[in-house]
Amino acid sequence: MSQLSTKPPSGMRDFLAPDLARRRHVMGVIQRVYESFGFTPLETPTIENLTTLLGKYGPEGDQLLYRLLHRRERLARALEPKQDGARPTELDLSDEGLRYDLTVPLARVVANYPELPAFYKRYQIQPVWRADRPAKGRFREFFQCDVDICGTKSLVAEAEVCGAVATVLRELGFADFRIHVNHRELLRAIVSDAGIDAAMEGPALVALDKLDKVGVEGVKAELVEKGIAAESAAKLLDVLAAARAPGFLAARAKEEAKPGAKAAAELADLLAVAASGPAGAHLVFDPTLARGLSYYTGPIFEITVPGLAGSMGGGGRYDGLIGMFTKRQIPAVGFSLGLERVLLVMEERGMFPPLGLGPQLLLCRFPDVPAAYAIEAATQLRGAGLRVELFADTPAIGKQIQYANGNAIPFVGVIGDAERQQRTLSVKKLATGEQKSLPLADVAAFVKAG
Amino acid sequence: MSQLSTKPPSGMRDFLAPDLARRRHVMGVIQRVYESFGFTPLETPTIENLTTLLGKYGPEGDQLLYRLLHRRERLARALEPKQDGARPTELDLSDEGLRYDLTVPLARVVANYPELPAFYKRYQIQPVWRADRPAKGRFREFFQCDVDICGTKSLVAEAEVCGAVATVLRELGFADFRIHVNHRELLRAIVSDAGIDAAMEGPALVALDKLDKVGVEGVKAELVEKGIAAESAAKLLDVLAAARAPGFLAARAKEEAKPGAKAAAELADLLAVAASGPAGAHLVFDPTLARGLSYYTGPIFEITVPGLAGSMGGGGRYDGLIGMFTKRQIPAVGFSLGLERVLLVMEERGMFPPLGLGPQLLLCRFPDVPAAYAIEAATQLRGAGLRVELFADTPAIGKQIQYANGNAIPFVGVIGDAERQQRTLSVKKLATGEQKSLPLADVAAFVKAG
Repeated sequence: MSQLSTKPPSGMRDFLAPDLARRRHVMGVIQRVYESFGFTPLETPTIENLTTLLGKYGPEGDQLLYRLLHRRERLARALEPKQDGARPTELDLSDEGLRYDLTVPLARVVANYPELPAFYKRYQIQPVWRADRPAKGRFREFFQCDVDICGTKSLVAEAEVCGAVATVLRELGFADFRIHVNHRELLRAIVSDAGIDAAMEGPALVALDKLDKVGVEGVKAELVEKGIAAESAAKLLDVLAAARAPGFLAARAKEEAKPGAKAAAELADLLAVAASGPAGAHLVFDPTLARGLSYYTGPIFEITVPGLAGSMGGGGRYDGLIGMFTKRQIPAVGFSLGLERVLLVMEERGMFPPLGLGPQLLLCRFPDVPAAYAIEAATQLRGAGLRVELFADTPAIGKQIQYANGNAIPFVGVIGDAERQQRTLSVKKLATGEQKSLPLADVAAFVKAG
Repeated sequence: MSQLSTKPPSGMRDFLAPDLARRRHVMGVIQRVYESFGFTPLETPTIENLTTLLGKYGPEGDQLLYRLLHRRERLARALEPKQDGARPTELDLSDEGLRYDLTVPLARVVANYPELPAFYKRYQIQPVWRADRPAKGRFREFFQCDVDICGTKSLVAEAEVCGAVATVLRELGFADFRIHVNHRELLRAIVSDAGIDAAMEGPALVALDKLDKVGVEGVKAELVEKGIAAESAAKLLDVLAAARAPGFLAARAKEEAKPGAKAAAELADLLAVAASGPAGAHLVFDPTLARGLSYYTGPIFEITVPGLAGSMGGGGRYDGLIGMFTKRQIPAVGFSLGLERVLLVMEERGMFPPLGLGPQLLLCRFPDVPAAYAIEAATQLRGAGLRVELFADTPAIGKQIQYANGNAIPFVGVIGDAERQQRTLSVKKLATGEQKSLPLADVAAFVKAG
């Protein structure tokens, strides 16, 4: 048989033990903090019906969905020649796809289980899949870590989801992150103020979302290209720049007759309510923040950190999404941390603590020691809480110890005939060469003491 | 917009908080025990190249693979009319699929990373997908929990993987499980003894694998249907029945000239070596155990427990599989626990301990207490290690307390103006009605005391 490729597919990764130690460290902090905020866990299936996924993420999202090919009879039927000679479409060939984010599955779940609490606070840490062009730090399978509060329009919910992600980042050792805040309604009002037609609002926000990447002139060019008058495009960017001035929100909130006044008042409230919590020091009003997804209806958030292009996470209020799945109108707000982005920055900055990993002791034996006794000894040491690897074969003891050295196992324990008869172990700490003969019952304490 | 379906796709499940508490309890024990045996973690991507997956699981496996539809230009090209008028095939429309088990990805990984330890001991707990007909207890997305040892032919490796799964089951509270053991080479010898042609060995094993389900006569009928002489079929089942007699392995091992002697000796050795470890009391030689998968080459295992149709897990030695991905021939042996099967039996038997879950305290406030102060108080309580849900709105306090009652939150803490000024909390234990006014700093200890 010819040799098969051994690489994972493009944009996919294998995680070996050191990767997983780091990933689990971060996910452990996220889980503990999210639970401390009273969120309970949810996991949804990898595969969703396409009817659930399509039309929620905008046209680009629909294109990036992974779709599952029909099988057997259904596939054969889909491939039968059509009367009009048309070729089969994606929708003929598939009706299921892979999870694209965690928010749409949450909306489906809230609609499907009326027994959930009226104020459903859930967290979810799972991978999502997007058939995007892979690039440095951009993968086709990556993890999102979401918190959402459903069932209330209170701004306390906004403050709580911001507080939860801020606490996570602080506990991981971040101090210099910012949570940018804006409001979709305020943004709409400002777009309208600039003389841009309501029909062009969506494309205008999509263009604005690229401000970080393409700059003021780039956004203006895209606005014009989309059919917005150059004058309006310039005005929009001027108004947004002016909105950065201190006091803008308070002033706008006072102009009660104008669109955007209520949104400005809400943002000012949110900043005040959250000030006493963990997000307080990190929140900044950013009038240019747009967010790509179409389902947001109120406050929107995005986290940046110096040195990272793009964001570490984002979120916002989406009061209409759950209503696409149920007649009950259920408001909701959420925040999503991108695990890979957090790991990338922690890696670059060397923020990981030492992470215990792998066996603590390699149990070696001379060839005259029966394997059955080695297993008995290993069982006792594992029962005492040690992570013990038993060397399966019996080459020269020096070779066995060399294996421990080469694989960063800090202790070896050697069994010869004398050790077997006395139920002792000759234990060696490889870093120092320190060696001791210990009763089996005392080995765990010695190893744990380092 | 018309109402969308809110159910997960057929064979898929949503896991709400109580499900996840049980699943995480079991996965936590598995992870801890596997690590105590010196296994280190691995995770592989959900999506694999079809070249990796196809041809490893037998024809039925290939049929049950989930395949991902090509996108855009590649899809368009695949759907272009062919010169000979043939319709596109599955392989034209797709070149990636979903993980089907954890063993084939492990083989790919071992081949791809030469830096891995020479005796690579890894565990992996991840979902797999099979487009099987859903049924009670059979899902299309389910979790496998595998341990494998690569790089040695020593039977100590067999004893260790059996010891690891036995320790998991014992720590979960199982006492009555059996680990059935057989050997592919012994089975081949017995098939040959019965006068069955080597070419029919594969189909014979597939038929034999159904003995549990269809009984002796059912297996005989299938053997005959596959073209095996009725006499040979009868003889095979007679020989297998006779092999259950005590002393069979020892006797067969002594007939050194006969095929199967070495395999019988290996099994006898394995039973002796493992006897002193955690698997010892559970191992039974079962000459009829066949296992469905084609890649096994040596000892094979399967776990049964009274009252469960089918197995809770299985495994075996596969010395040829890794060699399909690399020129290095690397022997390996592994064991896989089926998470859903373990959960099913634990559920039926009521084996779960109480599992702490959800917020411990609901923080309520009167409308005149500013939200900012409630967030400050919640932050302090969470910092002290409590899981605290903050009620976002301010309906009547009775309604807030009712919400805690209805959602199994054991404590409520109420903030009025007096509590705010004194930085205290009026804490009520809902199970008893016990009520106390406590300084904020003392609340965590009171709640944790239950």
